Amino acid sequence: MTNIAILGFGTVGGGVYEAISRCSKKPLCDVNIKYILDLRTFPEHPLGDRVTSDFDKILSDESVSVVVETMGGTGAAYNFSLAALKAGKSVVTSNKAVVDKFGAELERAAAENSVVYLYEASVGGGIPIIAPLNNCFPVDDIVRVAGILNGTTNYILTHMQSEGKSLEEALKTAQELGYAEADPHADLAGLDAARKIAILAGIAFDKYISYESIPHIEGIENVTSEDIRLAEQLGCVIRLIAVAERVNDKARILVAPHLVGASSLFHAIREAFNAVSVTGSAVGEVVFYGQGAGSLPTAAAVCGDIERAILGKATTVVRKDCEEGFLLSDDGEGRFVTLANGKKYRYFE
Amino acid sequence: MTNIAILGFGTVGGGVYEAISRCSKKPLCDVNIKYILDLRTFPEHPLGDRVTSDFDKILSDESVSVVVETMGGTGAAYNFSLAALKAGKSVVTSNKAVVDKFGAELERAAAENSVVYLYEASVGGGIPIIAPLNNCFPVDDIVRVAGILNGTTNYILTHMQSEGKSLEEALKTAQELGYAEADPHADLAGLDAARKIAILAGIAFDKYISYESIPHIEGIENVTSEDIRLAEQLGCVIRLIAVAERVNDKARILVAPHLVGASSLFHAIREAFNAVSVTGSAVGEVVFYGQGAGSLPTAAAVCGDIERAILGKATTVVRKDCEEGFLLSDDGEGRFVTLANGKKYRYFE
Repeated sequence: MTNIAILGFGTVGGGVYEAISRCSKKPLCDVNIKYILDLRTFPEHPLGDRVTSDFDKILSDESVSVVVETMGGTGAAYNFSLAALKAGKSVVTSNKAVVDKFGAELERAAAENSVVYLYEASVGGGIPIIAPLNNCFPVDDIVRVAGILNGTTNYILTHMQSEGKSLEEALKTAQELGYAEADPHADLAGLDAARKIAILAGIAFDKYISYESIPHIEGIENVTSEDIRLAEQLGCVIRLIAVAERVNDKARILVAPHLVGASSLFHAIREAFNAVSVTGSAVGEVVFYGQGAGSLPTAAAVCGDIERAILGKATTVVRKDCEEGFLLSDDGEGRFVTLANGKKYRYFE
Repeated sequence: MTNIAILGFGTVGGGVYEAISRCSKKPLCDVNIKYILDLRTFPEHPLGDRVTSDFDKILSDESVSVVVETMGGTGAAYNFSLAALKAGKSVVTSNKAVVDKFGAELERAAAENSVVYLYEASVGGGIPIIAPLNNCFPVDDIVRVAGILNGTTNYILTHMQSEGKSLEEALKTAQELGYAEADPHADLAGLDAARKIAILAGIAFDKYISYESIPHIEGIENVTSEDIRLAEQLGCVIRLIAVAERVNDKARILVAPHLVGASSLFHAIREAFNAVSVTGSAVGEVVFYGQGAGSLPTAAAVCGDIERAILGKATTVVRKDCEEGFLLSDDGEGRFVTLANGKKYRYFE
């Protein structure tokens, strides 16, 4: 039996409980959720008596070997993660903001304490992407990683196209359906996608890259239904795509709306789905597709990391810091297409 | 340094040499190809002096820890694999016929000798699918695995549609381009796809399943360009799809041409590409897409297994034998669509 603690009992933390309690496969069916850290109480919940607001109780309990951080934010989430790693507990998280801001420090702390810091669920929800990127391309130089990494904007773009809605109308529906936050800025402005591509690029290129260092982050705010209609006349759709590509020994990373023709699988990514394309020097292009969000899919990815931590199958790789000049600024290179209304879009292929 | 031997220096074996010799990443850059087993000689090749026709030399060399079987066939390939496992060497293969016919015995031999028998490259070429299926769905009950698993037939169906060609014409082009074998029967009749879905279903359902026990294997021989045109009028394409789905505690496996609507990502799988869809109880549908064949992509998958064998990251799971009655015979259930010419097709969604 493995004792774990879940920090933060919201959508993802609750999903982890659901997924583990339904699971019949070893080793996860033998996992015991010994503590749930939350400031709220859950008197009706089957594990209501495991809820505590005292992190030190978890930290000092040597029987807890894995801490699942699903709190969100970069304050307590960071402090608790670091403390847990230093106490010799592995940490698994779905929190891309902490990974982006403190990943380098937390991975070093994990390596120093012979435990692991894992974050499969921080990118692409339930899609296995970080573990495959770490483990399934051992001979390939990764030439490019690109993704439709934000479900909210993909939902909006899909419905602007299929129903001729304006961005505002499609956003409103997305909010009503729970696909978009009350404050959608981080999604619409491409910041969420930027955090995710920074994490993927960091793994692909063996560096710590923060989204704040990405030279070009452009969201979908200026995409109009007219643009989408004109793109359609060219056989294209418009998608918010985050791209990280090797250019000799440097990298170009950007987030921007792109035109996508039917020859790319990204042309077929609709609704709130996510897709990640990895191009290797030997294997060519491989695409991973699935639900980029949601309680159970994200929890399933968290549970994958819990299993890796338990089985000792993962090692935390300490990467290099990102040296100055490694990231190329956006020089407007690459292929552009001008629509009939004069607006220029990047072309993804 | 790890010493390995490659059995069979054809397309895939040669690709493994290429991939390893170009590789700059540990541990594969430290792999030494000590022997190449082939009846031919390769006097001009950089490793020409490593070529031998004597398997016993490899078997008795205790410094060889991994044997890569890329010979094809089920005779010597099986005998050599079994002997290597019994001698305490891990075996990695791209040979789906051996996995299908002797997988149960070889996995038991691997487990008994504390080594591994791995076959990522036997399904989906370069697409990571077997490792993710084994490792990335620890809480999910796999509800369905489905795939476009044969590049030749997908190429033919794509070109019958895009150019209005007959099956014979499209096959001829595929043969000229090297996408189809001189004897295309195993591809066209669905037998290749059946072998692959049997392997995937076996992993998903924790059983040994041979393709010979699949009740319904139907190829594309009877698909006409008229069918494809009529399907198009319904917004559909025709694809050869292998499906394995859970029905309570049993499974239904079949290979057949299906109509696919635009809501499925399989609608967008063109040319010789492959795609595998895995549906889990928690994670929902996840799709893996890439090149299903080719020297370097397949070699990259082989190399993934070599790395797993070296790092001890993989364990060979010994599964249950497939008890009688586990596989449901094809009762014609599921959703069918009748085309305007009266022909009935299964519908995939």
